[in-house]
Amino acid sequence: MFSQNKEALHTTKGSLVTADIWLRDWVETWHLMETINKGLKLSKTEVVKVVHHAFNPQGDTVVWILSESHCALHTYPEQVYFSIDVYTCGFTAEPDNLINHLIETYPTKKVHTHKLERGYY
Amino acid sequence: MFSQNKEALHTTKGSLVTADIWLRDWVETWHLMETINKGLKLSKTEVVKVVHHAFNPQGDTVVWILSESHCALHTYPEQVYFSIDVYTCGFTAEPDNLINHLIETYPTKKVHTHKLERGYY
Repeated sequence: MFSQNKEALHTTKGSLVTADIWLRDWVETWHLMETINKGLKLSKTEVVKVVHHAFNPQGDTVVWILSESHCALHTYPEQVYFSIDVYTCGFTAEPDNLINHLIETYPTKKVHTHKLERGYY
Repeated sequence: MFSQNKEALHTTKGSLVTADIWLRDWVETWHLMETINKGLKLSKTEVVKVVHHAFNPQGDTVVWILSESHCALHTYPEQVYFSIDVYTCGFTAEPDNLINHLIETYPTKKVHTHKLERGYY
């Protein structure tokens, strides 16, 4: 079966922060990824795996698997839009820092953000 | 630059459906994944890539990159709990079908679901 020792008991509690962001000018996905990598550090998260899928003719999905849960980016270059989800479990991560870092880095036309508490019984 | 022909203009509109699920009895991750694969079909989504990360000593993260966006599973076997996020863009997917399929498949102790509209300017 599975371990039930104290070290293995991770809390299910956490939060899912999302943002839908319309930029003034499009930025390439590699640049967004660099900004998100920095934002994930500022959010005190640990990246364990990054997966990138490029759609044809355009648009990218990038997923960061985190020790704390995940981060997902979807880009729509032709709409000058991207969405980002940051789900972090536990009480040490600060996912708002990533969203703030994105908004401070790029001039935006419109931003919708939302926070949902997760895993509270 | 990027294509701006009609076929390439994908809508940014969609929805993010999440569920936090406490089960009566734990089921193995491979079984959850099979149920989710079926649920993604019932939701009329197309899977383009699946990524699985197993944590030590336990717990799995599985991400399905979809043509429509993504689905993410985080398991906490020792808490008999898993969370699931289904983000679908466009108007053809029915992500509620996946959540309903999970709830119909497994006896649960508690379920929290939430739906957030995404990408509406």
